[in-house]
Amino acid sequence: MTAKRKAVVLLSGGLDSATVLAIAVHEGYDAYALSFRYGQRHSVELEAARQVAQALGATRHVVADIDLKTFGGSALTDDELAVPHHDSADELGSDIPITYVPARNTIFLSFALAWAETLDASDVFIGVSALDYSGYPDCRPEYIAAYETMANLATKAGVEGRQRLRIHTPLIQLTKAETIRRGQELGVDYSLTHSCYDPVGGRACGSCDSCLLRGRGFAELGLVDPALQPVAG
Amino acid sequence: MTAKRKAVVLLSGGLDSATVLAIAVHEGYDAYALSFRYGQRHSVELEAARQVAQALGATRHVVADIDLKTFGGSALTDDELAVPHHDSADELGSDIPITYVPARNTIFLSFALAWAETLDASDVFIGVSALDYSGYPDCRPEYIAAYETMANLATKAGVEGRQRLRIHTPLIQLTKAETIRRGQELGVDYSLTHSCYDPVGGRACGSCDSCLLRGRGFAELGLVDPALQPVAG
Repeated sequence: MTAKRKAVVLLSGGLDSATVLAIAVHEGYDAYALSFRYGQRHSVELEAARQVAQALGATRHVVADIDLKTFGGSALTDDELAVPHHDSADELGSDIPITYVPARNTIFLSFALAWAETLDASDVFIGVSALDYSGYPDCRPEYIAAYETMANLATKAGVEGRQRLRIHTPLIQLTKAETIRRGQELGVDYSLTHSCYDPVGGRACGSCDSCLLRGRGFAELGLVDPALQPVAG
Repeated sequence: MTAKRKAVVLLSGGLDSATVLAIAVHEGYDAYALSFRYGQRHSVELEAARQVAQALGATRHVVADIDLKTFGGSALTDDELAVPHHDSADELGSDIPITYVPARNTIFLSFALAWAETLDASDVFIGVSALDYSGYPDCRPEYIAAYETMANLATKAGVEGRQRLRIHTPLIQLTKAETIRRGQELGVDYSLTHSCYDPVGGRACGSCDSCLLRGRGFAELGLVDPALQPVAG
């Protein structure tokens, strides 16, 4: 029996990354899930990440502390900038929104690269989508390809020609609805996930960009987002 | 009068990055110096970074907290791995040494990119050298070029075509001795800098890779490394 291959999976605790973790496990990887405490307002997502990692059978789950508040510049980390709310997903524009965190995916992937090198893993999974991507530049295929090229020049394994790092983006051509359908096939319990940028009392607001995109995905499948269902009681 | 251009300068507190900061200031940039508390054993270098930033006129100096100990894998961050010591620089091999921190420059540059984006700066300075580089893969010109390509796909400014991020590596073709000569021309006080991987009581050990490379540079100029001179008293 050969050992299973290891992969580092970036896990925010949201819908997309939970689906990606399920895909990595389904593809036969030992999944090392990596989350970040980065000064985000919505740190309730870290508890969601913990539950998702456990439910989907991650081999290990690590939360790395990093300090992005030092730099500011995003409504997700800067208390002086408000998270925008809208009545419907149709109001979302194509501009890069204020919730964009400068260089966030670049930083997250860099930590994933460090962990992968330490684990001797050559696979990293990230849940970016070029379709329902809220206009973030670091979710596009050309960005991911350039990151992969750079990463293979950055590491011991790349230099020594032992292995080639691969960044897997299984959602990159999927709509939110297609992502949800894929996750349901793999048994993801979306009630555990948390995507809201601006939760109130630990509950999703239903009107930030992230809630609206996610809600529309469920609606297209004739479903209601479990994160927005009223608490029983 | 036009405003000076801003640059983010990665500043470890060592000889190379102090020289780079002096070069950035000399080239007319407002220098935003960035250091990291990353679980390194030699955190005395952060006090050196503070003094160097002040002495060379950095506009601001920020120390970002990041967590690399979580991943381990390097003698610089892992208490279970010993920093190697040698009798002379001639013993240093060409293999990648145990002091290599996985993906360190990739992580450092990613934070520099985040800060540059927040400052609306398009210049980042880093003190890597492809000659006296201790065999680290992420100090090579092809790595830096690939990073720059990736960074320009990652950011708002790159996507909007407003500005192109440039990574400056003024030391990349310099030997340690040439770096020291350049720094002396610009008035760098190397007694403030700290490069040792394994200091004892805040003093340089004189026998780790970093001390040996640096000592050899000073020796080639007929000088003694001020970090290795006995304390007066």
